[in-house]
Amino acid sequence: MRNQAVVTFQPERKAVSVPTGTPLRDAISKAGIDMEFPCGGHGICGKCRIDVRGEVNLPSEEERELYTPEELEKGLRLCCRVEILGPVDVRALQTPAKTDVILQEGKEPAYEIRSPLRAVDLVLQPPSVTDQRADEERLLEALRSQGIHAKPLPGHLLRNLPRLLRESNWAVTAVLFGEDWLALHSQGTTQGVYGVAVDLGTTTVVASLHDVKTGTEFAKHGMTNRQVVCGGDVISRLSYVRERRDGLETLHRHAAETLNRLIEQLVADRKEEIYAVSLAGNTIMQQLFLQMDPTPIASSPFVPVCHRPSVWKARELGVKIHPDGCVCVAPVIAGYVGGDIVADILAASLYESDETLIMLDLGTNAEIVLTYQHNMTACACAAGPAFEGGEISQGMRAMEGAIERVWVERNELRLGVIGDAEPAGICGSGLVDALALLLETGVVDRTGRLLPPKEYSGPDWLRERIRENVEGTRFVLWENKKSSISLTDKDIREIQLAKGAVKAGIKILCYEQGITVDRIDRVLIAGAFGSHLRPESALKVGLIPPMDIEKVNFIGNAAWVGAKIMLLSEPGMRRSRVISEKMRYIELSGRMDFQSEFGLSMGFDDNWEYFGAI
Amino acid sequence: MRNQAVVTFQPERKAVSVPTGTPLRDAISKAGIDMEFPCGGHGICGKCRIDVRGEVNLPSEEERELYTPEELEKGLRLCCRVEILGPVDVRALQTPAKTDVILQEGKEPAYEIRSPLRAVDLVLQPPSVTDQRADEERLLEALRSQGIHAKPLPGHLLRNLPRLLRESNWAVTAVLFGEDWLALHSQGTTQGVYGVAVDLGTTTVVASLHDVKTGTEFAKHGMTNRQVVCGGDVISRLSYVRERRDGLETLHRHAAETLNRLIEQLVADRKEEIYAVSLAGNTIMQQLFLQMDPTPIASSPFVPVCHRPSVWKARELGVKIHPDGCVCVAPVIAGYVGGDIVADILAASLYESDETLIMLDLGTNAEIVLTYQHNMTACACAAGPAFEGGEISQGMRAMEGAIERVWVERNELRLGVIGDAEPAGICGSGLVDALALLLETGVVDRTGRLLPPKEYSGPDWLRERIRENVEGTRFVLWENKKSSISLTDKDIREIQLAKGAVKAGIKILCYEQGITVDRIDRVLIAGAFGSHLRPESALKVGLIPPMDIEKVNFIGNAAWVGAKIMLLSEPGMRRSRVISEKMRYIELSGRMDFQSEFGLSMGFDDNWEYFGAI
Repeated sequence: MRNQAVVTFQPERKAVSVPTGTPLRDAISKAGIDMEFPCGGHGICGKCRIDVRGEVNLPSEEERELYTPEELEKGLRLCCRVEILGPVDVRALQTPAKTDVILQEGKEPAYEIRSPLRAVDLVLQPPSVTDQRADEERLLEALRSQGIHAKPLPGHLLRNLPRLLRESNWAVTAVLFGEDWLALHSQGTTQGVYGVAVDLGTTTVVASLHDVKTGTEFAKHGMTNRQVVCGGDVISRLSYVRERRDGLETLHRHAAETLNRLIEQLVADRKEEIYAVSLAGNTIMQQLFLQMDPTPIASSPFVPVCHRPSVWKARELGVKIHPDGCVCVAPVIAGYVGGDIVADILAASLYESDETLIMLDLGTNAEIVLTYQHNMTACACAAGPAFEGGEISQGMRAMEGAIERVWVERNELRLGVIGDAEPAGICGSGLVDALALLLETGVVDRTGRLLPPKEYSGPDWLRERIRENVEGTRFVLWENKKSSISLTDKDIREIQLAKGAVKAGIKILCYEQGITVDRIDRVLIAGAFGSHLRPESALKVGLIPPMDIEKVNFIGNAAWVGAKIMLLSEPGMRRSRVISEKMRYIELSGRMDFQSEFGLSMGFDDNWEYFGAI
Repeated sequence: MRNQAVVTFQPERKAVSVPTGTPLRDAISKAGIDMEFPCGGHGICGKCRIDVRGEVNLPSEEERELYTPEELEKGLRLCCRVEILGPVDVRALQTPAKTDVILQEGKEPAYEIRSPLRAVDLVLQPPSVTDQRADEERLLEALRSQGIHAKPLPGHLLRNLPRLLRESNWAVTAVLFGEDWLALHSQGTTQGVYGVAVDLGTTTVVASLHDVKTGTEFAKHGMTNRQVVCGGDVISRLSYVRERRDGLETLHRHAAETLNRLIEQLVADRKEEIYAVSLAGNTIMQQLFLQMDPTPIASSPFVPVCHRPSVWKARELGVKIHPDGCVCVAPVIAGYVGGDIVADILAASLYESDETLIMLDLGTNAEIVLTYQHNMTACACAAGPAFEGGEISQGMRAMEGAIERVWVERNELRLGVIGDAEPAGICGSGLVDALALLLETGVVDRTGRLLPPKEYSGPDWLRERIRENVEGTRFVLWENKKSSISLTDKDIREIQLAKGAVKAGIKILCYEQGITVDRIDRVLIAGAFGSHLRPESALKVGLIPPMDIEKVNFIGNAAWVGAKIMLLSEPGMRRSRVISEKMRYIELSGRMDFQSEFGLSMGFDDNWEYFGAI
C-alpha cells in the first residue's frame, strides 16, 4: 500500500490527502479547485505555472527549458508535470478561470415568437354516458381542437392522469415541447414556463433566460467552460477522453456543471420553472456534453455520432431544470461543422438570402459556408491556433492585457489593449492588425518575409522597431524597461498558415458551387474572434476576398442567437433541421486541390483564382 | 407507542412481529404468505376461514352468523375480521392458492409469423472520406436497405454507438420492437431473442415463451394471479384501491410479481434473453398492472385511461426481462370491454369473417361482440357472479371438487366433478347444465319457478330430490350422510339474472346493427367459463339464440392466443389497434330499452325479438 500525503493549497487553505505518486493535477481536482490546463496537461504550453514547496518529483525536461535553475530551486514548476511524493504546499500562480466573461451581443433577424415549448390551458368536457372517451383521448382531442397535435402521453403522465383530471375538475395545463409531453398540471398551479438558450463554446458558455410566450429575455450570463480544467482547446480535450478511463464522463460532467451554474445565476431557486434548454455548440462540444465519445471526429474520416437535432430528458444529462424538462441539442453538418454553425446560419438568415454570401467562423478550426442561389455549401479547415493567440511567441487569448488593435496615428504606433492595462501579449485581432500595418508599410514583403533593418527603406520610427538576433527578426510593438511585446518572423508564418487555409477553403467552395470568388456579394463574420477583427485589416492581409469594406459584416455571437431562435420559434427549429439535411459538405482533407490552393494562398496577393490540383 | 406482538403461522412455522391492533391480514402479507380474500376482505364471502389461538379481537357479527358458538370457542374465525392484540398462533384452513393451474388451449387462426420483435444482423460499410455519414445515419440506412424503417436511436444507445460500431468492426445486431429500438449488440454476442405472450386474467395468469423468428412455443405456464390476496374479483380489487393509500401500488406489484414468477418458470436464469412481453387482460386488470388508477371505471361513465395499445419499458413496470425490453399492452375498447376481448377478436379472426357472428366472453362481466358485414359492435353487461359460482348457495369456481357437468343416464342423475373428487360445490357450467335439465324435465317452469314436490308431476326419482323447508325449495344434486349439494330457488334467480343480461345484450346489439337475432350464423364462446359450458345446455336455458348445435363453437383461451398473435405478427399487432378504433361500443347502462329487454329476457322462452323501451 502506498502512503498518503497531505497537499495544502494557498491562498485557499484547502488541504487534501492523496496517495504518494498521485499527479498534482489530480490532487487539485480532488480539492475542487478550478485550474486551466490549456494544452491538456502535456507540458507543452507552459501555462500552468505553479509554486510548489515539499516532496515532489524532479523537474522534467520541459520545465528545465522553461525555468532558470534559480527558479526551479525556488519551487517554480509546471503543475501538469508534478507528482506528489510527500507533504506539499502549493501556491497557484495562474489566474483562476473567471466565472464572468464579457458577453457579446449578436445581430438578430426578425422572427415570429412561436416556441415549441408551450403551456396550454385546457378545460375538458367531463365524461358522460354519451361521451365515454378515455381520459387520454379526451385530452388529446381537446389539444387537437386548438390545432395542437401532441403525441400519446408518456407512462408517468398516463399513470397520474385519472387522478389529476378529476382533482383539477377537468381544468389542466399541458406543458409541451413540439409534439412531446413534458408535464401536465392542475390549472392555476403552474408557475412560470421558461426556456434557456445556450451557446456551448469551447472556452465560454453563454446562457439566457426567456419567457417562451413573448420571447422576453430576463437575464443572460456567460461563464468559462469548466472543461478548461481538462484542456484549453478541443484537441487537448479529445486527448483527455482518449487517455483517461473516465475522461468522457468527466468532461460531460464539467459541461453539465457549467450549465447548471449558469442556470443558477439565471433563476436562483426557480429552476423547476425552466422546461426547455436549446443548446448549440461545435460537434465535439455537443458530443462531450451528451457523453457521446467524440474521438472518431479526431481522425479521418471525422465522423460524428448523429446529424439530427436530438431532444434529451434533462435528467439524462444531469441538467437541473424541471425534472421532466428537455434539452434540445442543435443538429450538426459534419464532425467539424457543428450545431454552432447551424445556429449561425439561422441567426444570419443565410438560407433565405438572395445574395451570394460567405459566412466565416474563425478559430483554431475555421468553418466556411457559401450560399449561392439558396444552395449552401460548407467546409472546415484547420487554421491552427494563431487566431486565438496560440503558437504565437507572445500570443494570448482576447482577455485583459491583450493587444487587440494596432494602428498608426501621426507617424506613431498606437495600441488598443483590452482593459486599458499594460500589454501582456497579443491576441488574434491585434495580430491581423499588426500584420496589415507591416504589409502596408513594407516591413513585411508580399512573400511574408519580415525585412531586416538594413533592407528596410521606410521611415526610421518603424525601422527602429525591427530587431535582429540569432533567433531571427522581430518587430517590437511595445516595450518598457522590463519587457517587450514583439511579432516574430515565425509568428507571421503562423498567421500565413491560418489565412492560407481560409483563403483556400473559400476558393474551393466557390469552385464546387461553380462560381468565381468575385461573385461574392458579402462576407459575414461570426464568433468571438471575428467580433474583434477589423475588416480593413482582414482585407489587407487577404483573409477575405477584395470587396467594399461595408460588405464585410460582423454578426457577433450568432450561435447564441441561433440557439435562441430554436428555443423561441418552432419554424426556426424545423429550419435548423433542414439546414443540416440540405447542406452540401465539402471535405477538404485529402483533396489534392486543397493542398495546392493552400500553398498558393499563403502569400499576400490579391489573386483569388482557383488553380486546382498541381 | 403500541406494543409489538408475535404472530406465528402453522404449518409454515413462519413468525412476524407487528404492532398490536394490526389486522391479521396485514400480518399475513408481511409474512409473505399467499392467502385469497375472494370478497376483498369485507367479511362477505366467508371464504377466508382460519383457526386462531391467542389474543385477538372478539368475533364480528358476520362470524357469529357463520360459526356455531362451539366453533368460535375453538378459535375458528374469518381471517379478514381478526385483529392482533397479543401473541397469536394461526393455522390456515383455506387451501393456499395453487401456483399451477390447468392450462387451456385456444383455437388459433392461420397467421404469418412476422414478429414486431426482431433481431437484425447488419454489416455496415465503414466510414471513409467519401462516405462521412454519421454513425446513426449509417446504421439507420443499413436497416432501411433491408426495408426496416427504425426510429432514431434512444439516448443510451446513441451514447454507446461510436464505441460499439468500432469495437464490433461494424458488424452489429439490432434488436427492434416495431420501429422502436431495444438494444444493439456486437454481432455474435446476442444470445436468444425471445418473447412472452401473457393472458392476464383476474383469477389466472397464463404466459408462454416463444422464439419470435419461428413462433415456436418453448414453454407455457399458468399461475393464480397474486392479486387474489387483495380480492377474488375485479370489484373487490377496486375497493382495495379505493380504501388503501398504497392499494394501487400493491395490486400493481402483485401483478408484476405474478408475471415475474411465471417468467422465471419459463426461462429460469435466461431472463435477459426475453426482449418483449405482449399482454392482454380486461381493462381493469391492465390498468392495475400498469399502475393506472382504475376506479373511474367502477362508476358511471366507466371511463378508461387510454384506448391505444401502449408500449412500456419493462423496468417501468418492474417486469424482469432484458433491462431495455418492452411490455406491449393490448388496446381496449371500453372500461368493460378490454384488451382480452380485442385479443379474443384477433384470435377468432372475427374482423375477417363474412358471417354474422356473436362472440361471448362470459363471467361476472359478460362481453358480447357482434360482427355483421365487417362492422363490429360490442357491449358489456353485468351478469353477476353466477357464472363463476358466486352468489350461488353452494357455488364455487371451476376447481377440484366442483360439479361441472350434470346429465341423466337411464333415469339416473349423473354428475361430472373436477378432479373426480367428492363434490364440494357447483361451478358455472354445472349450474347451466343442472338448470337445463330441470327445465327439460319440468322441475323448473318457464318463469323460472322451482316446483314444490307436490306440484311436480314428473318421475319419482326426480321428485324425491325436490325438498322444501322454511327457506324455500331446493333440488338436491348430491348427498351423503354428512352433506349435500343443492340448487335453490334463489340460485335459479341468479342464473336468470345472468342469462337475462346476456340475452338482452345480444338483442340490443342486433337492433343497433339493424338485424334480427335469427340472422346470426354462429356463436363463439371464449374464456374459462365458456370452455366448460355445454352448447346444448346453453341453448336450452336460452343463453344463446336458437340455432344448430354445431354453430356454437368454443374458442378456448382466446385472450392468450390473441396476445400471442400480437407478439408474433406485426400485422396482428396493427390489426388489434384497428379493432379498438373501429369497434362501435354500445353503452347499455342507462338505456331504457336495456331495462325492458333485461326484464323480458329472464324467462325461459325462445322469443328473441327486440321489444324496445316500455
